[in-house]
Amino acid sequence: AGGPPSNGTTAAQTTVAGATGATTKRRVEDRGAFDKRLRFSVRQTESAYRYRDIVVKKQDGFTHILLSTKSSENNTLNPEVMKEIQGAMATAASDDSKLVLLSAVGSVFCCGLDFLSFIRRLTDDRKKESVRMSDSLRTFVNTFIQFKKPVVAAVNGPALGLGAAILPLCDIVWANEKAWFQTPLTYGQTPDACSSFTFPRIMGVASANELLLSGRKLTAQEACSKGLVSQVLWPGTFTQEVLRIKELVAVDAAVLQESKALVRDTSRGALEQANERECEALKRVWGSSQGTDSILQYLQRRTELY
Amino acid sequence: AGGPPSNGTTAAQTTVAGATGATTKRRVEDRGAFDKRLRFSVRQTESAYRYRDIVVKKQDGFTHILLSTKSSENNTLNPEVMKEIQGAMATAASDDSKLVLLSAVGSVFCCGLDFLSFIRRLTDDRKKESVRMSDSLRTFVNTFIQFKKPVVAAVNGPALGLGAAILPLCDIVWANEKAWFQTPLTYGQTPDACSSFTFPRIMGVASANELLLSGRKLTAQEACSKGLVSQVLWPGTFTQEVLRIKELVAVDAAVLQESKALVRDTSRGALEQANERECEALKRVWGSSQGTDSILQYLQRRTELY
Amino acid sequence: AGGPPSNGTTAAQTTVAGATGATTKRRVEDRGAFDKRLRFSVRQTESAYRYRDIVVKKQDGFTHILLSTKSSENNTLNPEVMKEIQGAMATAASDDSKLVLLSAVGSVFCCGLDFLSFIRRLTDDRKKESVRMSDSLRTFVNTFIQFKKPVVAAVNGPALGLGAAILPLCDIVWANEKAWFQTPLTYGQTPDACSSFTFPRIMGVASANELLLSGRKLTAQEACSKGLVSQVLWPGTFTQEVLRIKELVAVDAAVLQESKALVRDTSRGALEQANERECEALKRVWGSSQGTDSILQYLQRRTELY
Repeated sequence: AGGPPSNGTTAAQTTVAGATGATTKRRVEDRGAFDKRLRFSVRQTESAYRYRDIVVKKQDGFTHILLSTKSSENNTLNPEVMKEIQGAMATAASDDSKLVLLSAVGSVFCCGLDFLSFIRRLTDDRKKESVRMSDSLRTFVNTFIQFKKPVVAAVNGPALGLGAAILPLCDIVWANEKAWFQTPLTYGQTPDACSSFTFPRIMGVASANELLLSGRKLTAQEACSKGLVSQVLWPGTFTQEVLRIKELVAVDAAVLQESKALVRDTSRGALEQANERECEALKRVWGSSQGTDSILQYLQRRTELY
Repeated sequence: AGGPPSNGTTAAQTTVAGATGATTKRRVEDRGAFDKRLRFSVRQTESAYRYRDIVVKKQDGFTHILLSTKSSENNTLNPEVMKEIQGAMATAASDDSKLVLLSAVGSVFCCGLDFLSFIRRLTDDRKKESVRMSDSLRTFVNTFIQFKKPVVAAVNGPALGLGAAILPLCDIVWANEKAWFQTPLTYGQTPDACSSFTFPRIMGVASANELLLSGRKLTAQEACSKGLVSQVLWPGTFTQEVLRIKELVAVDAAVLQESKALVRDTSRGALEQANERECEALKRVWGSSQGTDSILQYLQRRTELY
Repeated sequence: AGGPPSNGTTAAQTTVAGATGATTKRRVEDRGAFDKRLRFSVRQTESAYRYRDIVVKKQDGFTHILLSTKSSENNTLNPEVMKEIQGAMATAASDDSKLVLLSAVGSVFCCGLDFLSFIRRLTDDRKKESVRMSDSLRTFVNTFIQFKKPVVAAVNGPALGLGAAILPLCDIVWANEKAWFQTPLTYGQTPDACSSFTFPRIMGVASANELLLSGRKLTAQEACSKGLVSQVLWPGTFTQEVLRIKELVAVDAAVLQESKALVRDTSRGALEQANERECEALKRVWGSSQGTDSILQYLQRRTELY
């Protein structure tokens, strides 16, 4: 599952805009120092690990995976990006990491599947490409379902489609107050990442279908009150607050894993089945001419979303 | 199946009170025009479809079923009303409707079972009538469990007992800000419409039992924050906002049905079992003299509710 | 186990003052009078019923069990306390009580397991004591899972660990606005009382793990909005409002029990399995030297919590 050659220029992306929500001067200064350290560490890590679309930082007790796609726009996921994430998670599963922190470089978390490259491929060979994509998706989602160590998602910005749907398969979800959430399935996509199972469980069918059928957009606060997000963090202190993950890292590794297993194992079978059924449905949708049309329509409308 | 003879006078009921929440004059004028069209279409439809207790309007891409009972008060449900709804849903299932919009004419959504006529029948032949009512209820609820197209409920006013309990078997629930919700099982009724299963799933056991055991009354906002309602709409613009259903109608029919199936199918068996067990429990309650007493008590107290 | 002889004087205890909703001076005075009567009645009951760590008051139509531990601090639970609660519940299950009211004397509800005495015993014989404690816990939790009459918990103050985790196994949970909730499993404890199953069901995985993994502290209001608590009651009128339980007592006993069965029975098997798996996990944790260390660490940090 090797990653393509690294490049040395991504570090600049980590330069985050000045503190917006912080209230004291001291905090801002701390922040500056922190940003410097972050830029340094990202640069360092990149030379060590060879990924193209993600940045992986092995920290003390946990692995930090940051989406930072080169092969797609807005941190969208294509089979290559998914494979890199799976590779990084496989490494984190077997090394001494107690947990995984999942976030993104820049102002966007993840805008779902990379429909831009997908549509090109679909037009070439619809049958083959719809099978390929649904297989990639199945494996990607199963990686999250079956991952034994806790995954903390730190949602720095918009989470769309698969980028939102995958969150209930993480264990803790912190969201920047600026983040927002949408699964715009209205544009001809059936649910993915087990969201047809997890969303109704989390927020009830009535709310789940507003997301899954109507494509309603949720603010971070709304997503929190509906149970999709654990806690909303302020933009100005987001990066620091995410470091609270170190409290979790202080817990005994066996206890963390056992606790996650107790929570996850009762729904694991149901999640795997949901994933299977969703991928089959998407393969059917993508394999049809109507499915291709609806993706085109989605891509057109999506420009209006930003 | 068969609907009783139509009448021509219901149209007047659709005259809804003046816009409360609308802010611009233009909106109010749009509204007036809309109301005229609505009154016209209701009248037209009634001559076309022959139902007594409901109004069915076949619209472009969806079927609108409105409760407007003649054989019972306050849109309460007796075996005849339930049969009409089932008939209209069966038609919508097989025609080109992409979904069903369920609402009511007037200021009340649905006040649950028609205990007034039921108590009369129970006093005649308790055994026979309790079996008849529980059979009607079972079939009615199964119609919702097994319906394959999305059902959007637009709750215009109070939803009591079965009228509230049925909502989680719909897919999207919009509520007028004036609506309120109560399942006054305190008065000797065990749960119906799978609410013993759906309510705890949606809001947790602690909140569910406040409704199911204590008969707590929820405002539309409370029902929304607990996940029973997808969104609260303002009284002044309720009728227009409900027309957002047209966005859903724009989605490919197969995708809508597939999405609903993904969400519903994982709990379908459990819902059918819950319905079965609830109907058995109600048959026992209704078949006892204590059950008859508690219905009488409920009817007396209900007058105080309004 | 079994409950000692009854006494004939309890009736007087049920005489509770008038005012239900209120803000006036009269009410505050009532309160003072009520508190006096409460202190008196508690004293009286204690001499009549022979429990050491709980107070049991047989009321008209329900049994009131109050934690008031002598063998442990802060209403923490050790095998002896748990046995007394089980005994009182067994009595309430077989007598004419329609339901059980569970609360506590003083300003604390329940601070979870009695780790103070447990750690002493563990140091003597880790193997034996970890088996003994997990067996006690399993039986205690199963008592709640299998109890057929409704249990209303009136959470007067802090509910920690097992004291919070047990709440979803009750049917209605009222909380004093001063109460707060925490399951500080961060300190090396895996979940108990089926919280690995109930918490994610009630509030979604993201919120559940903030409690189960991160040990986040919830206020009564937060616990209510997340579905752990049915309703928040004001400190000044808490004791009176709890007497609303009499409305529930007015319901037919068979209907209450049938309604509870409908809600509980669909998850009963899953709850028993979750309890089994959690107790096995805790036995492993407690049986290890790391587990003992983490309890010590917890006891040290806990002093800071107050």
